[in-house]
Amino acid sequence: MRYFASPGAFDMALRTLPEAQPASIAAAAERQAHLTKPAGSLGRLEEIALFFAGWQGTPRPLIDHARAVIFAGNHGVTVHGVSAFPASVTAAMVDNFRNGGGAINALAQAAGMDVDIVALDLDRPTADFTVDAAMDEADCLAALQAGAAAVDTGLHLLIVGEMGIGNSTAASALCARSLGGSAADWVGPGTGMDQAGIDRKIAVVNRALTHHTDAAHTPFETLRRLGGREIAAIAGAVVQARHLSIPVVLDGFISCAAVAPLAASFPAITDHLIAGHMSAEPGHRRLLERLGLPPLLSLDMRLGEGSGAALAVGIIRGALAAHNGMATFAEAGVAGRE
Amino acid sequence: MRYFASPGAFDMALRTLPEAQPASIAAAAERQAHLTKPAGSLGRLEEIALFFAGWQGTPRPLIDHARAVIFAGNHGVTVHGVSAFPASVTAAMVDNFRNGGGAINALAQAAGMDVDIVALDLDRPTADFTVDAAMDEADCLAALQAGAAAVDTGLHLLIVGEMGIGNSTAASALCARSLGGSAADWVGPGTGMDQAGIDRKIAVVNRALTHHTDAAHTPFETLRRLGGREIAAIAGAVVQARHLSIPVVLDGFISCAAVAPLAASFPAITDHLIAGHMSAEPGHRRLLERLGLPPLLSLDMRLGEGSGAALAVGIIRGALAAHNGMATFAEAGVAGRE
Repeated sequence: MRYFASPGAFDMALRTLPEAQPASIAAAAERQAHLTKPAGSLGRLEEIALFFAGWQGTPRPLIDHARAVIFAGNHGVTVHGVSAFPASVTAAMVDNFRNGGGAINALAQAAGMDVDIVALDLDRPTADFTVDAAMDEADCLAALQAGAAAVDTGLHLLIVGEMGIGNSTAASALCARSLGGSAADWVGPGTGMDQAGIDRKIAVVNRALTHHTDAAHTPFETLRRLGGREIAAIAGAVVQARHLSIPVVLDGFISCAAVAPLAASFPAITDHLIAGHMSAEPGHRRLLERLGLPPLLSLDMRLGEGSGAALAVGIIRGALAAHNGMATFAEAGVAGRE
Repeated sequence: MRYFASPGAFDMALRTLPEAQPASIAAAAERQAHLTKPAGSLGRLEEIALFFAGWQGTPRPLIDHARAVIFAGNHGVTVHGVSAFPASVTAAMVDNFRNGGGAINALAQAAGMDVDIVALDLDRPTADFTVDAAMDEADCLAALQAGAAAVDTGLHLLIVGEMGIGNSTAASALCARSLGGSAADWVGPGTGMDQAGIDRKIAVVNRALTHHTDAAHTPFETLRRLGGREIAAIAGAVVQARHLSIPVVLDGFISCAAVAPLAASFPAITDHLIAGHMSAEPGHRRLLERLGLPPLLSLDMRLGEGSGAALAVGIIRGALAAHNGMATFAEAGVAGRE
């Protein structure tokens, strides 16, 4: 199946985003008003239940089948020394995930999720985007396609994670290009760079922004020029999930940066998205604010892989368990407010 | 078994608090340094794993048996119109919990916990503490005792929740008496009072503080005079859990306020405690800061029952799953930093 056969098809998918079902949201809110608790006292858990009601089209939403997809890619920009780890770590970590040894494996299992690892041409890094587009059109379409293909119709929830040495530099470039601000606004230590490393990343992002300054400001062109395969795959998965009305939990700075070029042109893309957490990477707070996505968690995590999103799934499961499992005032014979 | 046979026995328990085991913390930290992730990249999850290692005395801590205990009590101070709900709701909600219909039932099940409901003399409210001590010595000891008795030696984790119409007023009085500040600093809307109701609560707390101003500043006397049965029971459970080296996850404003009189005299009491969340009740932020307990979650919840603590257990399970389940760099054949 071809999901995004051309840049135009991807653009059309973004122009035809389905919306949540207001009748189901209203019905879920009506149920909540009768549950044995003071109105509003479950805070964001109540919002989560309504959110899932809207996308699942039922007042009693469920999560029977949740999946974590981890996309991996390699980046030509690593030639500039933008990561504390060698590029070979991307492939080694993919093997680690496949053997069940990553943090995401443990966290996804704890949250009752499948894990799917999608490695994208690891032996063929993207081009150095300070002097060229990261991907040609066919490569970018293939990455979007791989993301879309990872989204099964039967899923109730998808989380998107990534692995790619160097990809926090690509993410910073995507944010600056899509949302404005200086390179320094969006660059941080990533997996643990010192200040000299951060300065190198800022210089790389500035060179990239200058090189691509005259390019078209479309989601596709921005992803193709400044992104990476795993980042474009996340964008493809997010758009495909939307067309299947499947909520997506974003992870950290990089998975959110994959959405930035989309949101810059089509702000409604965030309607089916939840920010699982706010990471320790400084640009993530700014990015979440710009996307209008308040994070569920803020635990100083900065690993990627989908780890923060996986942890947030437990909160979502709790929200739906309370929404579906609680008795109403009438069922319990409890008096309401005086 | 008598845990706290006298006020002196409770005081002695607070003077002889056991500490965590530093060798196990060090061994767990050594393991973490070799796991396949950048150092520190799991943020607070890493701290949680070390915390449990210290209290369980092993570098690979586990949670096989976790329990949520909900203590319920009634409050004489409700005669002053300090709650939006009638006092009869306490007993009705206890029935609801026993029938599995409360938020805590759904959230505890989702987090893999037993639920134990301990109703404390609901037909015999505490005295109005604006004119009398809330409890006499025997009643307060019985409540501490009931809390201690709810803590089984085999537990790996305990969460403490409460139900008691009027108990946010008692909690505010406990905080002001124990930690200083004005009544207005500690009083909030509770289950949903308007400003007139909040003003009534402030006046009630001020009258109580004045009435008991010459009392001894001991944990026992403060709990006895300004607390409630469910609040004293939480204090008893927290102290007993400490003597069994069982970590306790606190819930919202009221469960934390139960610890305030203890922490004012014995600050080390918080060493085995985790703040599950920060609630929407305004005094809770101030209280957590004073206790030195940064919350795991902040989701605008304000229900009590242990609901926020139960939700936080999923985070803790994730932390231990990652700590125990991840491969090391050597096991996975992954290179470290360049």
